[in-house]
Amino acid sequence: MSRLKTIEWTNGIVRIIDQTLLPDQILYIDIATLDRMYEAIQVLRVRGAPAIGIAAAFGLYLGVKDFDDGGDINAYLDYVDERAGYLATARPTAVNLFWALDRMKRVARESAVNAGINTVGALKKRLLGEACAIHEEDERMCRAIGEAGFELIKDKGCILTHCNAGALATGGMGTALAPVYVALERGVTLKVFADETRPLLQGARITALELSEAGIPVTVICDNMAASVMATGQIKSCIVGADRIAANGDTANKIGTYGVALIAAAHNIPFYVAAPSSTFDLAIPDGAHIPIEERGRGEVAQWCGTEKKTVPDKAAVFNPSFDVTPSKLITAIITEKGAIFPPYTANIAAALTDE
Amino acid sequence: MSRLKTIEWTNGIVRIIDQTLLPDQILYIDIATLDRMYEAIQVLRVRGAPAIGIAAAFGLYLGVKDFDDGGDINAYLDYVDERAGYLATARPTAVNLFWALDRMKRVARESAVNAGINTVGALKKRLLGEACAIHEEDERMCRAIGEAGFELIKDKGCILTHCNAGALATGGMGTALAPVYVALERGVTLKVFADETRPLLQGARITALELSEAGIPVTVICDNMAASVMATGQIKSCIVGADRIAANGDTANKIGTYGVALIAAAHNIPFYVAAPSSTFDLAIPDGAHIPIEERGRGEVAQWCGTEKKTVPDKAAVFNPSFDVTPSKLITAIITEKGAIFPPYTANIAAALTDE
Repeated sequence: MSRLKTIEWTNGIVRIIDQTLLPDQILYIDIATLDRMYEAIQVLRVRGAPAIGIAAAFGLYLGVKDFDDGGDINAYLDYVDERAGYLATARPTAVNLFWALDRMKRVARESAVNAGINTVGALKKRLLGEACAIHEEDERMCRAIGEAGFELIKDKGCILTHCNAGALATGGMGTALAPVYVALERGVTLKVFADETRPLLQGARITALELSEAGIPVTVICDNMAASVMATGQIKSCIVGADRIAANGDTANKIGTYGVALIAAAHNIPFYVAAPSSTFDLAIPDGAHIPIEERGRGEVAQWCGTEKKTVPDKAAVFNPSFDVTPSKLITAIITEKGAIFPPYTANIAAALTDE
Repeated sequence: MSRLKTIEWTNGIVRIIDQTLLPDQILYIDIATLDRMYEAIQVLRVRGAPAIGIAAAFGLYLGVKDFDDGGDINAYLDYVDERAGYLATARPTAVNLFWALDRMKRVARESAVNAGINTVGALKKRLLGEACAIHEEDERMCRAIGEAGFELIKDKGCILTHCNAGALATGGMGTALAPVYVALERGVTLKVFADETRPLLQGARITALELSEAGIPVTVICDNMAASVMATGQIKSCIVGADRIAANGDTANKIGTYGVALIAAAHNIPFYVAAPSSTFDLAIPDGAHIPIEERGRGEVAQWCGTEKKTVPDKAAVFNPSFDVTPSKLITAIITEKGAIFPPYTANIAAALTDE
């Protein structure tokens, strides 16, 4: 299991790793107010969709816990809504941020009505309980993915991953990396090759950090070295996370994932996607319907936000932030409900409706 | 044609672009002594195998041109050898450096014996002539590759290249990029996607610079975006250079080339290697016999020689400097003798012996 605690509720404060300092420094910071959590989310001290959701839930609690315990309950509910609305502006495109805050607001209103919680003090306890529940659900989801994935890769020796879908992106042991942590718990050490993942280097900075801190041997390579490493025969499977999965299994993930899948296929190496079932969007029939976000020139043309130029001004830059891997290249999609195999359209529908 | 003159002999001095300043600044520097050329080669102000060979030939001439015109011819030949031996230490692994210096030394001794050149003054002229010949041969070789390559890609619209095998690596219009310059001369503008080429970013810094300065539209992408761009259908062919080609056509080139070839094959995009016939090593039967140089951790783990760490200390780094593309993935190998198509073993042997 990762030794790093991405986010933790302890003694009335939220403790997070300041991910802006990685990999140079592993510094835990204590967050005791909504305003500090706003800043932490905004500047990416906490990152990764699941981790942001958990941070937002606790952050909202921190923002509403000092209201008078005996105060007016409707005024309190309005205050919760207002504080949630403010925190939601910390990152305008983070879906899990909105999801977690909406869940907290809904729980507050529903508890006041249906559960008959009629004091502000009791409602606060309910909100803290919900934030803890969001965290625990994420931990369980990660572990379930880890168990399912472990069955697929346990005898495989060496895996390759792209970007970071690990403990530092979640409240648990991650998604793509969860099988590696489960293996470690069971005495199976899997060696990991981590693509550095240009332009933002999440593989080099974050995946390599969390695995090496957990005692898992990890080797960083430039993205363009994956083919060469796979040709040596040492990679037995590839595992990546997912941002969005269409009804037919086509998977949007960090840019470069599609190339890894093509190269894995050419070497007959299994290619796995690991993601919670919430990642599926059954309204999207296939990958052609997933819009591709294009990000700014600076990420590619300058080094990590510095002024150091790597591309001449007269040249253009194309910087898509993710790509789509066709499901025919995916050996299995590993979810907290178990692994889903082809034919995907039927099996995804069955897995997601089989509650 | 590229507007940049990588290396030029003019008015008794060698003018080069200081490539250490690219892409921030295009600065020509004048080199009038062997010692300054030594430094320029050593710190990579001039780079690329053919360009280094030309620089060495002119550099040697600069180092021996001030010997007394009426001096002892044997003393002069020894002096040429000594100065060449010194210049050869500027970069200990640059094959073209040794090749050019050996050629200059041999020409000096052979001229003194066979051509009956019996004054130091006349021998100096012969050496300057040989340096100019090395440069001109390289220019002709580049153009011949460009003409042969143009026939293959002229109707194709948009190409993708990896690393820099362009004008800035040679004394002419380059190898992989030569067809693009020939196209430009004939009024055909080919759009180029340039992989940035981690870890040293030759694609972003050098290919993007020379093409954009020539007015050729060039778009830089991270290496891991090539698959995504090819999936859009806009890339009509890929062209790369080569470091070494085995008798069966297996090609060693900058790390990442093999991945590009696999991804091109998956999209049915022609994949061309462009290189002079001197790149073939018929003593090597296939790619498995080509040793892969592994370079230092710092190139991957720190940014461009700075102290800024991108990989945590506890993680390993694997940094192979090139990879081998099996010839079955190569559509044609474009040389100054024309394009060579499969079956490679027979056709390479025929092309190289057909003088």
